[in-house]
Parts: sequence; C-alpha cells; structure tokens
Amino acid sequence: MSDSERERVNARLDDALQARVEHALDNKTKPQGSLGFLERLAYRIAMVQRTEAPHIDRARVLLFAADHGVAVNGVSAYPASVTAAMVRTAADGGAAVSVLTRAVAGAWADIEIIDVGVRSDLPALANVVSARVADGTRDFLREPAMTAAQCRAAMDVGAHAAQRAIDAGVDVIALGEMGIANTTSAAAVLSALSGVSVEASVGRGTGIDDRTLAHKQSVVAASLALHHATMTNSDAKPDAFAVLTCVGGFELAAMAGAAIAAATARKVLLVDGFITTAAVLAAAMIEPRVLDVIVFAHRSAERGHDVALAQFVVLGLPKMYARPLLQLDLRLGEGSGAALALPLLRAAACMLSEMATFDSANVARASETV
Amino acid sequence: MSDSERERVNARLDDALQARVEHALDNKTKPQGSLGFLERLAYRIAMVQRTEAPHIDRARVLLFAADHGVAVNGVSAYPASVTAAMVRTAADGGAAVSVLTRAVAGAWADIEIIDVGVRSDLPALANVVSARVADGTRDFLREPAMTAAQCRAAMDVGAHAAQRAIDAGVDVIALGEMGIANTTSAAAVLSALSGVSVEASVGRGTGIDDRTLAHKQSVVAASLALHHATMTNSDAKPDAFAVLTCVGGFELAAMAGAAIAAATARKVLLVDGFITTAAVLAAAMIEPRVLDVIVFAHRSAERGHDVALAQFVVLGLPKMYARPLLQLDLRLGEGSGAALALPLLRAAACMLSEMATFDSANVARASETV
Repeated sequence: MSDSERERVNARLDDALQARVEHALDNKTKPQGSLGFLERLAYRIAMVQRTEAPHIDRARVLLFAADHGVAVNGVSAYPASVTAAMVRTAADGGAAVSVLTRAVAGAWADIEIIDVGVRSDLPALANVVSARVADGTRDFLREPAMTAAQCRAAMDVGAHAAQRAIDAGVDVIALGEMGIANTTSAAAVLSALSGVSVEASVGRGTGIDDRTLAHKQSVVAASLALHHATMTNSDAKPDAFAVLTCVGGFELAAMAGAAIAAATARKVLLVDGFITTAAVLAAAMIEPRVLDVIVFAHRSAERGHDVALAQFVVLGLPKMYARPLLQLDLRLGEGSGAALALPLLRAAACMLSEMATFDSANVARASETV
Repeated sequence: MSDSERERVNARLDDALQARVEHALDNKTKPQGSLGFLERLAYRIAMVQRTEAPHIDRARVLLFAADHGVAVNGVSAYPASVTAAMVRTAADGGAAVSVLTRAVAGAWADIEIIDVGVRSDLPALANVVSARVADGTRDFLREPAMTAAQCRAAMDVGAHAAQRAIDAGVDVIALGEMGIANTTSAAAVLSALSGVSVEASVGRGTGIDDRTLAHKQSVVAASLALHHATMTNSDAKPDAFAVLTCVGGFELAAMAGAAIAAATARKVLLVDGFITTAAVLAAAMIEPRVLDVIVFAHRSAERGHDVALAQFVVLGLPKMYARPLLQLDLRLGEGSGAALALPLLRAAACMLSEMATFDSANVARASETV
C-alpha cells in the first residue's frame, strides 16, 4: 500500500475503533463519565495504539541537554556552567527527574540523557549519550543560533534517541531538557511560531527579577526582529524549521526530532513543561501527525506555557487534549513534570484494559434502576 | 511524660525540624520553589513523619462499604443492590480502585475492603473483612441513621482497620468508600457540620437528573430539619458525633474513626473525594490532630467538594493544604482518586530524601552568578 492508501484504511479503522472504545468505557462498572479526564486519556492512548486494550508497560524519558549562546546576554539567574553540572547530577541519579522517575515508575521507566551540545567539555559519563552537534549554539541576538545543517543534525539526534526507545519496546516517550537560558530560546520559538508578544511568551525561567525579565524580553524582541525575514516563508507564515535554526537550541531541535519520530511510530508522546511544549509546537507545525500522539504532562508555572498550549488548539488539537494532566505549579523542566505524570498514563490504559464491565460483573446499570 | 508535656516537647522539636526541612528543600539542585506544590507536599510529609528524610514505602487503601436507609427515597441513579455488587467487583480486583491502585502502586500499595454494613448478605469473600454493624443504616429522613452505639461501633471498625494498616507498616492510609446513596449522607453531614445550604452541598452523585437532584435536596433539607436539635450541642454548635449518628453512614463513621487513628499514630492520611472529605471533616471536628496529617488527593467534580474543602480552612488547616493534588474531574469515589495520587506522595518524599543538594553536586547557586 502507498502511504496515502494506508492512511485511508487507517482512518476507516479508526472510526470503527473509536466507537468500540467509547462503548468499552461506558460499559465499565462506574457511572458514565465518572472517571472524568482519565477516560479521555484512556481513549487517547487507545487511539494512538489503535486498540481497545491499550497498555503502558514501558516508558523512557529522553533528557536532552545543550547550551545556548544567548546566555552571554545575562538572561538567566544561573551561569551557563550549570548545564554541565546538571547533566552530571542527572547521570549520578540525583537530579529531580532521576529521583521522581524512580519514585513513581522505577520498575517500568528509565531515563536516557543525551548531550546534544553542552558547552563545557563533559567527561565521558557512563549514563550519557554523547551526540554533540557543537559546543553550544551561537548567540541568536547577533546571528542564527545554528546552521540549517546543525538543526537537521540536532533533530536527527532526537529521532535516533526516540528510535532507540522504540527499539527497546517503550509505550511512552517522555521529553525533558536541560540547558541554561533555554526558556529564552523557547520563548523566542513560541513568539516566532505563533506571533504572540514577548510579554506573553517570556517568563522568569529559573527565577529572574523584574529588571532581568525586562532585559530578557528586549533580547527576545530584538532577536525576533533580526531573524524575522529568515523565519518567514513565501506565504508570510512562520517556517518552523527556520525558527528552530534561528532562535532554537540543540535540545529543542532534538526534542522536535524525537516528537516527529514518536508520531511516525504512533507512540504516546508525553510533553513536559514550557520548553518542551515550544519544541513540540515546532514539531507539530513540521509534521501534523504529532498532534495525534501528544499528552501534556503538567501546566507549568512559567508564563508562556498556557499561550503555547493554546497554539496547539489553533493547529487543530481538540481542546480537551490541550489540557495538561497535572497542575502543581512546577517550573523546573528536566522532564520532572513528565515523570510525575507517567503513572496517570498507566492508570488510564489499565482502566480501559482491566476494569470490570457491567456485563462481566453482573452489576445493574443506572438505566435499570426501578 | 504526660500527654501535655509530650505535646510541648514535640512543638519545640517541630519548630527546629521545620527550619531544617525548609533549608533542605532550598538546598536541592533546583531553583528555589521550582517544584511548586510538590515541595509543600514533601514538607507536610516530613512534618507528619517528623523527619528530614521522609519515606513513602508502603500504602494501604481502606475501602469501607455500607448501605443507606435513605436510599429508599429514590435519591440515587442506582438501586441499593449495587453496593454489594461493587464490593464483589472490588474483591475480584476489577473495580476502578483495584485497577488504579495496581497500575500506579502495585508493588507498594494494597487495598483492604471492609464491609461495615452492606444491606444484602454478601457471601464470605476472601478479600473482604466482615465487620458489619447492621444491615444498612435506617432511613434518616424518618429517624436517626444509627444509634450512638452503632456509630461508636462503626468508628471502631475504622480505627481497627487503620491499626491493622499501621501494624503492617504503612506510611500512608488512604480512604475510600462504596455505598449507594452515600453522597446524600455526605451532603447532609457537610451541611449539618458547616451550616452550608443543601443547594451548595447536594450534587448529582452517580449522575441523577435535575428532577431527582431537586428531590435529593429536599430529602436532605427535611432530614436536617428533623435532626437539628439532636445534632446541636449546648453551645448551639454542631456536634460532629451526633451528626454522624443522625445523618451519616456506617462507612462514613468508619472513615472518621480511621482518620482519628491515623492522626493519633501520625500517619499521612490520603483523602479521596467528596464523601471521604465529609467524613474526615467530622473526624477533624472530633479530633483536631486530624488536620495535621491529611492530604487531599483530588478535587471531585461532585458539587459539595469545594465547600467541604473550604471548611477545613475554617477549622485551621493552612489554605495550601486544602488544595487537592489532582484535578481530573473524577466523581467515582471508591478511593479511585486517592489511588491515583499515591505516586505523588512517594515522589514528594523521595525528592526530599534523595535529590542531590547544591553542596553534594557542586552546582553553582543562582546567588553565585557573575
């Protein structure tokens, strides 16, 4: 079959499956709809996996790390050297995402850390995949963050990481990132892709003060002005690949590549917070099938996250799926929110696959009430 | 030491511990406060366990089931016979709470089902503790739901179940319930304890229509009027024990007893949805130390839940702890929301106990930025 024939067949299969999954959910021994958003999540996982009996038995967090040339402009509360230190801490299992993943899904989830271009020379670390595109990006306030070839290379790094996860048999690919100044890059990507103002997209990141926030906004605004023509295609629309090239980061491009690979393989893609969401937005504009597999893990406390989520609805994502699973005021990144949401995915899948039905349990339905 | 001496010593220890826990949280390799509510949860668990290195290694869901005489008035979408069927489904491992607990915490959490007074004669089930106070409560629209002796007996059933869990070494006691018509009882308990109107406390439960909702509200209003004098103490305040006796249910009284036992033993008490919250509100009015150990698992879609949560703030619970961990529009009960929240408790405790510190990881702090 050709790709387009396969898509047509799948669409017909999906229509039939959709009805069967909705019926299965309504036949569970519970008032209809009483498991709320967990039912919608189960439905989504079923449609991604194309089965009425979905399962979430293996998960992997892909943790992409890189440095950002734009950090020289003093946009973060932390020095760029912290990225390498964070990678070492994660490799040692002491980072937030390491601890949280172990705590909630130790038996069935692991983490792969990928150095896509951390500035400092990291010693070879047993638990880190070295896939360095360059020694950090260039300062996008002055020049494109990377070349087109570098952007493609970074996306390939992400795609390869996703493929390793798929080959390992995962049911979920969760995305996370580390990189000082990457909320600056993510805000620039979000504004470039969506046209929202820097006041809406630029937030406090790791916790900068009012003065630094104003400076960060002006850095992003100036960068967007500098690269505007390059980032715009012949239809006067944003070109997502060019946006990643001009104001992205290696870890953002890698996450976009991983997202596209997950969508192609129809794997549930668990999106962390603001930075991950911005990268996946670019991916969805490059490859719309990304919209079919994403689940948002948590609503970040970082300013631009709600704006970024709303952009997915503009792209065609049903509004209910633009709602993140958790709202815990997290703003750490690293995939920490994605790690915390992993059990909910498993719960939703198990509910659909394993919970008793009215028929199997011989329980009276509401409609049978006298 | 006398009890009051012990309390004074503990208060001094708690002050010192409080400072040490806050310092430990701020010394983790992350921007201060960036793990949001997870940090507050970690702090709470640390204070309950009185340690800087809290742990959540074992949990048990106590699932109390009973029937309600008030069900004869047609307040539920389901017939009372469904309670027994739900217990059998849970005993077989096919109920929502069974599946969800297995899915998210299979290795470290179990469920104990306790029949406190299901109307139908259940056959002896291997996985159900039979601790029946009576064959369901009486219809509180006409007479008190139970005698004082029955209420004490039901509370003892809960206390004993909690004690079995404590003896088994649990770090968390989660509460759940099954019982057709128990949102009617819970709404009556909430209104009687707090004075809020039946319009605010009575909701759709398993999914009743507008007409049945209006009827349910009138049943609760008439019941409150009937028992008002009995439920009011000499200071013209609600008497929580009398409220449970007049309009409660055996499973509500049992949950109140379990909550008090958990508080006395300083075990984290994970509260499920609306019905559980109403029962624990009664418990907190009987024994204020309950306020020190509760964690609310989820914000229920059932109408009275927010009102019930707000009552805990009136009792002195810091507002941040009246915020539930999850908001997934659940309205099933059974402890299903509590089950889903278990991994978050474990994550919070592990974060505080295991995550690297700035000192251990040799990472620059924000204040050291140049």
